Amino acid sequence: MFEAKIDVSVLRECIETITAIVDEGKIKIAEDGLKLRAVDPANVAMISFELQSDVFDEFRFAAKEKEAESGAEDTSESKAETEIGMDFVKLLGILGIGGRKEVELELDEHAQKLFTRMGSLAYTISLLDPSSLRKEPKVPELEFPVQVTIETEEFRRTIRAAEKIGDHIVLGVDGEVFYMEAEGEMDKLRLSLRKEQLIHLTPGTLHSLYSLDYISAMSKGMSHAESITLNLGKDYPLQIEFEVADGKGKVSYLLAPRIESE
Amino acid sequence: MFEAKIDVSVLRECIETITAIVDEGKIKIAEDGLKLRAVDPANVAMISFELQSDVFDEFRFAAKEKEAESGAEDTSESKAETEIGMDFVKLLGILGIGGRKEVELELDEHAQKLFTRMGSLAYTISLLDPSSLRKEPKVPELEFPVQVTIETEEFRRTIRAAEKIGDHIVLGVDGEVFYMEAEGEMDKLRLSLRKEQLIHLTPGTLHSLYSLDYISAMSKGMSHAESITLNLGKDYPLQIEFEVADGKGKVSYLLAPRIESE
Amino acid sequence: MFEAKIDVSVLRECIETITAIVDEGKIKIAEDGLKLRAVDPANVAMISFELQSDVFDEFRFAAKEKEAESGAEDTSESKAETEIGMDFVKLLGILGIGGRKEVELELDEHAQKLFTRMGSLAYTISLLDPSSLRKEPKVPELEFPVQVTIETEEFRRTIRAAEKIGDHIVLGVDGEVFYMEAEGEMDKLRLSLRKEQLIHLTPGTLHSLYSLDYISAMSKGMSHAESITLNLGKDYPLQIEFEVADGKGKVSYLLAPRIESE
Repeated sequence: MFEAKIDVSVLRECIETITAIVDEGKIKIAEDGLKLRAVDPANVAMISFELQSDVFDEFRFAAKEKEAESGAEDTSESKAETEIGMDFVKLLGILGIGGRKEVELELDEHAQKLFTRMGSLAYTISLLDPSSLRKEPKVPELEFPVQVTIETEEFRRTIRAAEKIGDHIVLGVDGEVFYMEAEGEMDKLRLSLRKEQLIHLTPGTLHSLYSLDYISAMSKGMSHAESITLNLGKDYPLQIEFEVADGKGKVSYLLAPRIESE
Repeated sequence: MFEAKIDVSVLRECIETITAIVDEGKIKIAEDGLKLRAVDPANVAMISFELQSDVFDEFRFAAKEKEAESGAEDTSESKAETEIGMDFVKLLGILGIGGRKEVELELDEHAQKLFTRMGSLAYTISLLDPSSLRKEPKVPELEFPVQVTIETEEFRRTIRAAEKIGDHIVLGVDGEVFYMEAEGEMDKLRLSLRKEQLIHLTPGTLHSLYSLDYISAMSKGMSHAESITLNLGKDYPLQIEFEVADGKGKVSYLLAPRIESE
Repeated sequence: MFEAKIDVSVLRECIETITAIVDEGKIKIAEDGLKLRAVDPANVAMISFELQSDVFDEFRFAAKEKEAESGAEDTSESKAETEIGMDFVKLLGILGIGGRKEVELELDEHAQKLFTRMGSLAYTISLLDPSSLRKEPKVPELEFPVQVTIETEEFRRTIRAAEKIGDHIVLGVDGEVFYMEAEGEMDKLRLSLRKEQLIHLTPGTLHSLYSLDYISAMSKGMSHAESITLNLGKDYPLQIEFEVADGKGKVSYLLAPRIESE
């Protein structure tokens, strides 16, 4: 049993962080909230998403009876959760119909449907079969020597500028300076921010190259966050962390590096 | 002789209700105002439109002399009127040029031209030959057991949502509830409004299925009306009535039902 | 050596007057400011553009050393200037990145690059080889019997209206009336403004026909000017003059007439 009520704009903000990476995926519902971990079709980008139940105006969850029965010899470790397959692009379209402040959600596990209700308008979404969706990826164990916290808008603006130049972007730290650099056949773009122009910076000397396509997509997903934290290494994956839903939602994007040809 | 002056935005509002159904048609001009009745090329939707002369800032009309002459033995029933063929899409484009508050219209029946003047800008439109246009349709005699008056925005929003789902929509009344329902292969949308959530409702139990394409078009045509009245029957045409131009313009759309395959 | 600082919106306004005619061209930099003269690829339209150095917040220019050396026997007539080849469409894109008020420019003549810096964002543009660009056109000697100064928005609105009708437009003066006239197969548009509705008018009787494509493009380039001056003759080129950058920038468009087939 899952029933919940949430502000439409908060839920949209959350779903938009997901659709930046995947169109559909498996969401786990538990007593403490929602969770998702998914990789993009090309296995280049990953999202880990968590939303606390207390961001909902109402949130009621109980595991399936079958589970409850078998739970006779339950250990306290095992946590009851339900997994549903969701078309996030469709859900976003529904939430975008507009004119409503709040949406009610109600899961019919038996029929594999999610009822959504915004005012007098009810929308029944057929869930996707979780077994038809990609397996939840393992999060690789990574250690990031450098951490940079930057205003989201500064980052996004630079990404938009870089899109005019080429297909790749370098993210790096040189001493106490964080930089983003894109080079085309003719032109070159460079953003340089000193430690005092950033919210946080671990000094260091390293950089990695990434595909702009993916960072551009992520850049759209983070538009509601005020700041983001970049975890960086040398020729290493990029991890971008930020909060949504007034800090009750946590998003982490992971992006594989590109090999520099030079 | 026809000369008139009218607020540009009021005339646009009126023409937009017409272009929702037809691109061109025959308008009848008489002393008491303008009238049009037209069907769409596929014979599925019809519009009846009337605009009172007193919505115009100026309105001068006199029947053609030829008519006046033959009017020697005029009976008081026969009303003098002039019919002109108009490309409404073009007229809407002209009115949309912008920056002007008022438009003057002047008919040159002999040359079959309509002069429009907005400030210093004069636009001469060649009229269409009325005999080249479709005959004015007869309005079928219909009796509607149920009448529902609803806020236009509520109706339009539901139509926009339904477009994401399928090609058809059911409009019906179930006791004291009015509903709109669209079903796709996977999903289902339903708006339900109780009598107290509506401006008016005749209780009953009936519904009909309609093509969304046409209702979507009509939905655009009604955007300036605050509320609309739906006249419904069982597997019966839908009539949508509303007012424009501060109540001086009356529009009635008629739409043939679709047969439910089930 | 060329280094300058300027308000981003002012520079955009200037570049937009240029991209209305050409995508790329040669700009001459001298102590007193920037200059450009260019013709469109079809040799139908020409732009002369001048921007005074005092519109810049900072402006430092010195001719190349080589020139300075050979300048030993310099005559006071010869003015030191540097010519650079610029892709204006690209520059406009860079200035449009947004969020910055001021842009710094710095020319590296040796490397043929222009450094632009907006806040922490540096963008290096490779210059175009001036020898690969079209030669600067000679401005023909023209005498215009009639001059009309009109509010830009009135002119632009009429051009937009004319685009709905045909491919050409007549600009003319009939006594103390300035008019613009476009004729299609079916319709006709005419703007007539009496002397008192204009900022200035030289009375006369003449008109010329022009291609709307070019005037439409010019019309976009003049959008930041409050008024424009049209210099007209009988079957003669059209010259449109206006100011940008608070009067510190002067633009002159020249457009060849079309021969009236009638």
